[in-house]
Formats: sequence, structure tokens, C-alpha cells
Amino acid sequence: MSALTTAIGIDFGGTSIKSAVVGSGAIVQRGKPIDPQATGSDALMDHLVELIEQLRAEHPDIAGVGVGLPGFVDSVHGIVHELTNVPGWKEVPLRQILHDRTGLPVTIENDAKAMAYGEFKHGAASAGRHVVCITLGTGVGGALIIDGKLYRGAQLAAGEIGHMSIDFRGRPGPYGSIGGLEEYVGNVQIAERAVQRYRAAGQEKSAHECSPADLAAAANRGDPVAAKLWDDIGLELGAALASVVWIINPDTIVIGGGVAKAGDLLFNPIRREIRQRTLGLVHENLRVVPAALGNDAGIIGNAMLALEAAELSRAAAK
Amino acid sequence: MSALTTAIGIDFGGTSIKSAVVGSGAIVQRGKPIDPQATGSDALMDHLVELIEQLRAEHPDIAGVGVGLPGFVDSVHGIVHELTNVPGWKEVPLRQILHDRTGLPVTIENDAKAMAYGEFKHGAASAGRHVVCITLGTGVGGALIIDGKLYRGAQLAAGEIGHMSIDFRGRPGPYGSIGGLEEYVGNVQIAERAVQRYRAAGQEKSAHECSPADLAAAANRGDPVAAKLWDDIGLELGAALASVVWIINPDTIVIGGGVAKAGDLLFNPIRREIRQRTLGLVHENLRVVPAALGNDAGIIGNAMLALEAAELSRAAAK
Repeated sequence: MSALTTAIGIDFGGTSIKSAVVGSGAIVQRGKPIDPQATGSDALMDHLVELIEQLRAEHPDIAGVGVGLPGFVDSVHGIVHELTNVPGWKEVPLRQILHDRTGLPVTIENDAKAMAYGEFKHGAASAGRHVVCITLGTGVGGALIIDGKLYRGAQLAAGEIGHMSIDFRGRPGPYGSIGGLEEYVGNVQIAERAVQRYRAAGQEKSAHECSPADLAAAANRGDPVAAKLWDDIGLELGAALASVVWIINPDTIVIGGGVAKAGDLLFNPIRREIRQRTLGLVHENLRVVPAALGNDAGIIGNAMLALEAAELSRAAAK
Repeated sequence: MSALTTAIGIDFGGTSIKSAVVGSGAIVQRGKPIDPQATGSDALMDHLVELIEQLRAEHPDIAGVGVGLPGFVDSVHGIVHELTNVPGWKEVPLRQILHDRTGLPVTIENDAKAMAYGEFKHGAASAGRHVVCITLGTGVGGALIIDGKLYRGAQLAAGEIGHMSIDFRGRPGPYGSIGGLEEYVGNVQIAERAVQRYRAAGQEKSAHECSPADLAAAANRGDPVAAKLWDDIGLELGAALASVVWIINPDTIVIGGGVAKAGDLLFNPIRREIRQRTLGLVHENLRVVPAALGNDAGIIGNAMLALEAAELSRAAAK
């Protein structure tokens, strides 16, 4: 029997559910986006099934469906514990429901882990074996690839780099974390810090004028407040990643998400701090690279996880 | 063919090389200790071979030899890069030399990793699958067991929890690390901090009077300076381990080494901080336990690593 190559990847974002048929690691055909807010929770499930059936009608070789969702997802038992953006989706056995209604093997996964897996299989970390991924947006997400496999941890909660502390007496964050990285470099915190620093420099700006894109443009125009803020953010990220390097000794660090679009403004200080704060033998062989798949990382990662699950279940059935 | 059960474990300490025949995970017979300082580097190799031959004479079923050494050890290629306590031992292909001279399969490993493996196979973490080990002494060593296997990382340098930062603007340490845990809770640093705090409280003490054992005895007598210092050390360790929990999501944390003998003085604040700084789902299922094998952890871990290597090479030869 030939190897399975085609699966559907679904990326469950807060404002849009994106999907595609993925064949041999590339997008073959995109599904219609679904707005998860516009429908009730029952209708949403109908829309998902309809989406899968439409894509399968044109691609009968589909071997499975992989769904990535934000927040806490039990990928082993296939249960979505809570989906903050969809009222009523609590303790949903999504894998079983979608399997029962489509007959296809289904996997579900945390969105940051699925994105990391996409980058590992077909993106910026495809040459790696021990990979740390970090996604910089409103939240700071993370995931680990260990020995070529997605690592989930004892309660499937591993990789939460956003909550690791860079200052044990620092800013309080969610879940009791203190000095967590996200409290310094999350989108909202970056905007707040920018507003404060501009004010200290005699300039009044609103948080709306201090998005990462605004601040990157300002720094590239030579604005000293924005330039210094990016350097500080890079230092904080680099310090956190240096600690991760001491613990994990990865071969690749992939950095994605909206904030990472600042490019060299962010990557230069990150790489500088990792180089200064770790062993030469380790950082000389470490690649610190931007994510390559952009918004498709989750779709591709979920499709890959679905393919592997389908391969395993086929092998077990022999 | 029956499973291999008996191997020699050798633990290469700075002042004494300890060894034993290990059978079914327990010490069967100890070898004579060797003082690595008392002999030149060539004679030391002769002593090691002699030790192995003596133990094998009484235990002909020995399947292999595992040697653990401090510092940077290339376990994949079997090379000791440098042994600070033995002049002349640089880039020694120890595995090949001992194999050539004894005919036995030989493994070599970093000492902290071997100790962690001993605790995982037959000690405090034997119920675990994702295990973090930390050893508190002059240095702060660490090692990870991931998915039931010793995890080494891309350059075999993973697990260095002692160099992870708890304060990104904190105390400078080795290899450019800043705010590294070891700079707060290493033996020497604990003594320095105690001397300073006693002085601030109007008491003059020397560093020699401020060993971890002295400070534990003082705290247990109700000395407020020592009690507060232990609480602060526990807070710093707990904060560092909380970050490790966010990243690794382990089921077990094993804490060993001389400093850990302070017991509840240290474990209470460590457990408190991990509980306060992490997600309930994760810390409710986490065991934070003292090491169980004491000075034998390295011997047993090295023997287990040797047994597994011997099993693998026997399977490959079939």
C-alpha cells in the first residue's frame, strides 16, 4: 500500500477558521473560511462537517483531518476543554464527533504545537531535530520538538515559554506566574511600554498608535524611543531563550507571530543575547530563524499530525 | 538468550572514583575506591582497567561498564573532552581505550545525567516518564528524562538548569550567563550570602561556619537569619523550577546533592513557589521529591546505561 500523503488541516483562530487540503506538505486547495463567532456552537459543528465533506468531494484520497485550537486541548483523548471565543464549547469530544460524522480519522492539537510541527515538517526547522518554537502575538506561545517528535509533557501542557520567568521578583501574570516573558513582550504590553516611554520623552501617543507594525516603522525611520524599545524586547526574549538553550540545547529556534515581523530590530538583539549568555559550543551550532510558513503553519502542521495518526492506525489494523 | 542484568558502574568524582557491580538495579559488590589525584594520567588508566578486571573475576556475567565523569563528556563518541581534576586528561577516547583493554562494551556519560538516570531507573523517579533532576552542591547540575529516555540535546549539553537565569539583569556567572540559578544557590554563594546577612544582623561568622549543614542546624534551632536564608533559597529554586515546569511539564522533579539535605527547610518553599507560580492542572499532578539513591545514584545510573548499550549491541549483532 502506498504511503498516505493528503490530509485536511484546520486552524481554529479566534476570528476565522482557516483550512486546506495539504498534499506532500504543501497547500493543495483552501477551504472556505468560517467565522466561529457568527454561528451557535451546534451550527459551528455542522459547518465544520460540511467543510470537510466539500473538500473530500474533490480530494477523495484524503486520509484524515487535523484540527488545531487555541487554549488547552487534550490531544490524547481528543477533547477540547474550553474554547474561550465560542460560548458553549466546553469539554467537547471534538475528535469523536468529527470522526462519527465523517468516518475519517481525526486529530486535535493545541494551535502553537501544531504550528511548531508545521515549521518542523515543512518550514524553517525542517533541518532540525531538537527545535524550540516561539510565537509572538497577544500571547506568547511555544512548543518543543524533541528527538524529531512533538513533545507534549505529562499533562500535555509543555512548551509554555510565555509563562517562564525572566525575573523571579518581576511582573505578575496569569496562573500565578511572576516575571513571565509574556508580561514583557506580549502585544498589549509592548504597546503599554511604548506609550509610557513616549510620554517620558515628551510625546503623547495612544496604544492604538503603538502596534508592533507602528513601532517597527518608527524604529526604521530612526525614532530613538522605538529603537530602544525593540532592543530591550529583544534582550528580554534573548535572555529567556538563553535559559531555554541551557535546558534544552536545541539545534533550531523558530520565532513567528506578528511581533516577529519586526525582523532584524528583534532578531539582532535576540541572537546577541543568546550568544553572550550561553556556551560557545552550543550557540555556535544553533540556528535562530524566523518562521517560514506564516499563517499556513497551523494548517500544514495539523494536516501532518492527521497523516501520521492515519498511518499509525492503518499499521495497527494490519 | 536471557536479558542482561549485571554491569559495572563507575562514578568519577573529584576526590574519589567509586565503583560497584550492579545487578538488577542494586549494588552487588563495591570496587576499591581510587584517588584520581594520587596517580598520573597513565597510571590512572591502569588502575581503572585493574578495577574492572578484579570485579569481573568475581562476576563473570558482567555485560558492560558505564563510566560517569564531571564536566563535558561526549557520550556519543565516547570522548572525555576535559577532566579538570586530572591533569593531562584532555580529549581522551576513554570508551575505546577501556573497551580495547577489557573487551567489554563501555559507555561514558556526564555525571549529572548518569545520576538522573539512576534515580529514574531505580530511585525517586522510578514512577516517572518526564523527569527533571537537579543536584545542589558547589555547582548546580541538572538532567532531563523525556519520554522515558535520558535527553542529551543537540550538543549533549542539555539539562544545565544551574545556568538558567532567574533574573535577566542579575548576577554574572560562567559562560556569560546572567542571573544563573547557581549564582544564588550554589554552596559557595550560600555561604557568602549567610556571612553577609549575619554581618548585617550584627554577627560575625566566617564562610567555614556557614556550610549548608551549619545553616540547616541553625535554622532548625530557630536562628532567624538562617531560616530566612533557606526560605529565600527555596524561593529562588522554586521560581527556577516553576519555569522548567512551564517548559517541560514533567511528572517528577528529583532534588539531590548536599544542599538538599536541608530537607523541609528547602522543600517547603520550593513546593510553595511551584504551586503558586504554575497552572493547577500541572502542579497538582507533579511530584517534587528528594533523591533516593544518595551517592550510589551515579554508580547505578552508569551501570544501567552500560546494560542498555550492551543490549542494543547484542540485538544489532543478531
